[in-house]
Amino acid sequence: MTQAGDPPSWPEQAGMAELRLASVSSRYVGGRRVAVRGQPLRAVRSPAGTYQYDVNDAYYVEQAYMQRFVPAERVQEVPVLLVHGGGLTGVCWETTPDGRRGWLTGFLRAGLPVDVLDNMERGRAGWCSLPGVWEGEPVLRGERDMWLTFRIGDVDGYATRTAFSGCRFPVRAIDAALRQSVPRWPGNADLATATLADVVRELGSCVLVGHSEGGGLCAKVAAACPEQVRALVMIEPHGLPLFPAPPEGYPPQLTVIADYVSRSAVWTRLMIEVREYSALLRRHGITADLLDLPAEGIYGNSHNPMMDTNSDEVAGLILDWLAARRAEGAFA
Amino acid sequence: MTQAGDPPSWPEQAGMAELRLASVSSRYVGGRRVAVRGQPLRAVRSPAGTYQYDVNDAYYVEQAYMQRFVPAERVQEVPVLLVHGGGLTGVCWETTPDGRRGWLTGFLRAGLPVDVLDNMERGRAGWCSLPGVWEGEPVLRGERDMWLTFRIGDVDGYATRTAFSGCRFPVRAIDAALRQSVPRWPGNADLATATLADVVRELGSCVLVGHSEGGGLCAKVAAACPEQVRALVMIEPHGLPLFPAPPEGYPPQLTVIADYVSRSAVWTRLMIEVREYSALLRRHGITADLLDLPAEGIYGNSHNPMMDTNSDEVAGLILDWLAARRAEGAFA
Repeated sequence: MTQAGDPPSWPEQAGMAELRLASVSSRYVGGRRVAVRGQPLRAVRSPAGTYQYDVNDAYYVEQAYMQRFVPAERVQEVPVLLVHGGGLTGVCWETTPDGRRGWLTGFLRAGLPVDVLDNMERGRAGWCSLPGVWEGEPVLRGERDMWLTFRIGDVDGYATRTAFSGCRFPVRAIDAALRQSVPRWPGNADLATATLADVVRELGSCVLVGHSEGGGLCAKVAAACPEQVRALVMIEPHGLPLFPAPPEGYPPQLTVIADYVSRSAVWTRLMIEVREYSALLRRHGITADLLDLPAEGIYGNSHNPMMDTNSDEVAGLILDWLAARRAEGAFA
Repeated sequence: MTQAGDPPSWPEQAGMAELRLASVSSRYVGGRRVAVRGQPLRAVRSPAGTYQYDVNDAYYVEQAYMQRFVPAERVQEVPVLLVHGGGLTGVCWETTPDGRRGWLTGFLRAGLPVDVLDNMERGRAGWCSLPGVWEGEPVLRGERDMWLTFRIGDVDGYATRTAFSGCRFPVRAIDAALRQSVPRWPGNADLATATLADVVRELGSCVLVGHSEGGGLCAKVAAACPEQVRALVMIEPHGLPLFPAPPEGYPPQLTVIADYVSRSAVWTRLMIEVREYSALLRRHGITADLLDLPAEGIYGNSHNPMMDTNSDEVAGLILDWLAARRAEGAFA
């Protein structure tokens, strides 16, 4: 059933110039085969009756899913891989929760080829329900967790659904954001990095744009695959690689920091780490720009600027930074 | 890592006319809020250390995900909703396992607006990992199950990966098909029907194209929502609604039956049910056409013709049938 707070149906269709694409396609990358043996048959109940389920079979696990959009007229050939954050999927780059065009469409209209990732265990990548393959239990982000982690508001504000003053997260559409949550296995972080590295090697050359946990994954993969990653944009990353010095060929990087950081002890600590990481890179002569939105006079962004009401404005700043790297010859 | 049997990278890009779209967008429909209370904190291990996870929160469950593609030039305004089968997601309509364009692209190039569904519990719809909300355990389709259920070959053939003679399933790319498998809950069939009905009511008017389990779901929803469903195409459906007489306003229907039915006791029985269902509709004056591919001289199709090497040919027959219904005024 449609909820009272839902966005209007099917936005993005009115008054827009057409989107001219060379292709839309998808594929899976990475993962491995596993075989299950010696498990007993299981009686499974369904509305059609009970049947015997035999789990002993061969499977594929830990693959990533990518959906590729190639504009007909491009400003570059190197694709931009959009890497979601923790508990989310590639959907976060599509239509915003309140029904505006997302960064995917904005990037395509700017002439960039875009690959949207569902990393292993998330969304269309599928997940492993087999016994004994993954350790531990998954976690799922709920509404209060989202409210606090996305820095929509504080604990007291959650009780009355009162966001931070000036907050640009589309709070009236929070149900739509909540429906984007998918389970994740905290113990799978290294597998997620390995699969993303497989994706990047498959792409050959790419630009990575990662959000939150996805930003940290992108930085780790860029460190492992500096030949392939030509530029890196991180939106409020965490889980950054730790090293005494950056690896040879580490690409130019932009890190976006949003508003209300000082209202969260966790994010205050993580953004200090981000600043230290960027300063380290700069000491080694690597382009490591910080886009501190409030410092630039852009207020009210949550941890998820791609969902915020000024999402196009933030996307524009990222596109400008990428254009400058392209002009410098970082990629073509 | 890329597997030896993988398709060539990024197909669909060479030698194709551009795809002109009015928009690409996505949204969630249906589902419900649930609250978890009174659960103990859980210690969660991750590479970054152990942390406390509090599952007591508010969540959304059982929503469906839809990705909408609207061609710039359309032959109709009513969207075609593509409904995947059991254990699959909307990915099954995208690029084929061996890297050819899928029905999604074919339908778009024919000028049809297309919504691709990930129904509740599958793919980007997410799934419920919360305690006590869904009953039972999920099942996952493995390679042998796929081989037999998709009618690629028989049990003996699986041992040596020898498909039925003339089989058009792209067996060399079976890894890519296997990676599309996602877990499903057999006990959730009624929830899947309810969510699909929410989707159809949200769409207002639509054409449904459903594969396998998705075909049965579509027929049930068409019976519940005959005002909204203007035409129905089912590819090897099962789980068809049972009634003494079809409901008032039940839409015109096409059912596609593929090859090798006689090689499978299960499919022999299910296709008899399909024929009986269609005959019942015809006795009540409803258009209920059967497209029995081998009877039309089209041999070698598996249970998944959208993946088979002649997928474009089968799509063309469905598009022709839809064009005839459009010409009759079933939808516009």
